[in-house]
Amino acid sequence: MPRTLLVSAKVIAEFGSRINDIIAAAPRAMDIVPFTPALQLGPEQIANIEAAYYSRDIWEGTEKSVLSPAAQAFWAIIDRAQNLEWMAVYSAGMDQKRYVDALKRGVRLTSSAGAQSEAVGLACATGVLALARGVPHWLNAQQRREWSPLRGRDVPPDIPGQTAVIVGTGYIGSVIARMLQAARMKTVGVRRNATPAGHFDQMRPPAVLDSLLPTCDWLVIACPLAPETRNLIDARRLALMKPTAGVANIARGEIIDETALAEALKAGRLKHAYLDVFHTEPLPVESPLWDLPNVLISPHNAGASTGTYACGVEIFMQNLHNYLKAQPLTNEAAIVP
Amino acid sequence: MPRTLLVSAKVIAEFGSRINDIIAAAPRAMDIVPFTPALQLGPEQIANIEAAYYSRDIWEGTEKSVLSPAAQAFWAIIDRAQNLEWMAVYSAGMDQKRYVDALKRGVRLTSSAGAQSEAVGLACATGVLALARGVPHWLNAQQRREWSPLRGRDVPPDIPGQTAVIVGTGYIGSVIARMLQAARMKTVGVRRNATPAGHFDQMRPPAVLDSLLPTCDWLVIACPLAPETRNLIDARRLALMKPTAGVANIARGEIIDETALAEALKAGRLKHAYLDVFHTEPLPVESPLWDLPNVLISPHNAGASTGTYACGVEIFMQNLHNYLKAQPLTNEAAIVP
Repeated sequence: MPRTLLVSAKVIAEFGSRINDIIAAAPRAMDIVPFTPALQLGPEQIANIEAAYYSRDIWEGTEKSVLSPAAQAFWAIIDRAQNLEWMAVYSAGMDQKRYVDALKRGVRLTSSAGAQSEAVGLACATGVLALARGVPHWLNAQQRREWSPLRGRDVPPDIPGQTAVIVGTGYIGSVIARMLQAARMKTVGVRRNATPAGHFDQMRPPAVLDSLLPTCDWLVIACPLAPETRNLIDARRLALMKPTAGVANIARGEIIDETALAEALKAGRLKHAYLDVFHTEPLPVESPLWDLPNVLISPHNAGASTGTYACGVEIFMQNLHNYLKAQPLTNEAAIVP
Repeated sequence: MPRTLLVSAKVIAEFGSRINDIIAAAPRAMDIVPFTPALQLGPEQIANIEAAYYSRDIWEGTEKSVLSPAAQAFWAIIDRAQNLEWMAVYSAGMDQKRYVDALKRGVRLTSSAGAQSEAVGLACATGVLALARGVPHWLNAQQRREWSPLRGRDVPPDIPGQTAVIVGTGYIGSVIARMLQAARMKTVGVRRNATPAGHFDQMRPPAVLDSLLPTCDWLVIACPLAPETRNLIDARRLALMKPTAGVANIARGEIIDETALAEALKAGRLKHAYLDVFHTEPLPVESPLWDLPNVLISPHNAGASTGTYACGVEIFMQNLHNYLKAQPLTNEAAIVP
């Protein structure tokens, strides 16, 4: 009996013939088990699972702290699949505890890094531009049917000539740099290997971050969560920024000290923030961030874009092809120490 | 006695020494009259005005239908200045009745076209991106402290691959094209002389507008108001657009049939609109546009950006230099038939 691949019924309905073609062309057989939340598998069937795809449709509805019903059913199987060798996941970041645990028990993991990068990068640039141009002010006035142009000292500063420091220069950071450079901002990338890259006017190593903070009009967080980025932007670093500056975070909430950020925004030591990610998600109703003027919150929704799902499936299918031919996998995660 | 130049006291305070230098270097003398709203001039002093600058600070607070107090005082002088030969104005568009009347009585007029183009173009691109990514939805949910990600059929379509038809390819249209092209939209410019230009993937003549409308995801209006553009986007043309498409207008309200637009948006025959300009400004409180979901209104405020004022003064000073040397003026308006 061939070993099996666990894939959602939705992915099979839409991409089944291509997945079948990939398996048919492979040097060995593999059977497909269509996953639905109602799927019941016996112990032998679970032991027979060799590969699985945690696709976007299974994940959808999951928050940091609460799995969707479909995701609960999926992980109930995965947690018992002791012979699982490879799992592809919808996510770009690999910092979830479930992923780390899977890696630790020897499962190979591949991400969908790149599938969401256009969507997330465009959302981030949109959030920055919306705050920089006064969109929250306009929308608030609109709700009151009030014609209320920004005038006098409320007129926002010119966007061209501003400096954006972008921490993390991977797929997503590059999209953000492309957009902000088109808006004639100066883009400064921060990455370990400070070699030049497209759409970044400058590239600097993390060691000089403190010296960059007083110079920037926008600090954009677009790096993975890792031991060296956890709490990277703490109260001390926030205090190095100009009171006219803004922060954007589409990476992970844990990279910024959220309490210190809220205090700085409230006290006028920072001007505005676009935040897609938080320490706790959903963001608790009592968080002071909800009410702060000049804070724009998207509920970990920056990646929402119709093509993200299909793009993730493409990466999965390419890796399925490689996996069955014992070739290197794209986006394979390593255990973070 | 030299003839005079009427300039606001604010412009003189900030740029006076440079203006004095320009006059000192000119082949003939000219005296400066500092304008303030309280300025009282006798008939001879008014008759002696040769040139004037209707600067942004004098205009600020003016709406289409109502002049600011400073603008009222300014125009009360200008209307009686029968020997006025040249007036520089803060505006980019020259369609105001006051300007047309001045041209008709033989006054040379120069605009500040270009001074606002970055600000207006960035505001327009921001409005388009904000609607395309769901910013109004996020802000509404934020006000209710509600974690409400766009999911399932509410997930917005990918921005890359969308088509933006941009009517008007001058300073402002080019900034919009630059931004939307950076977002990987296909940019199609519409202008009389359909020669290629930077940031436009295609350039088409106005005669084929009807054939472009069914193809576009965004219709962006960035052309001057003129007899041939008044009511250009009427009910018939709106009906040619896809129900998933959006409209953006940072040009003049009169270019779109506002009633037909509101009806199309209300009926779901158009998806969204970013509007900076209206038939009547301020937009009347009873306008249905205020309340429509997926409409983003900025109150003729797209040009608000700190540098716009200074950039306008630069254009004025260059023209003052040219005027005093009897050289051609930049941005000189012709009488529209």
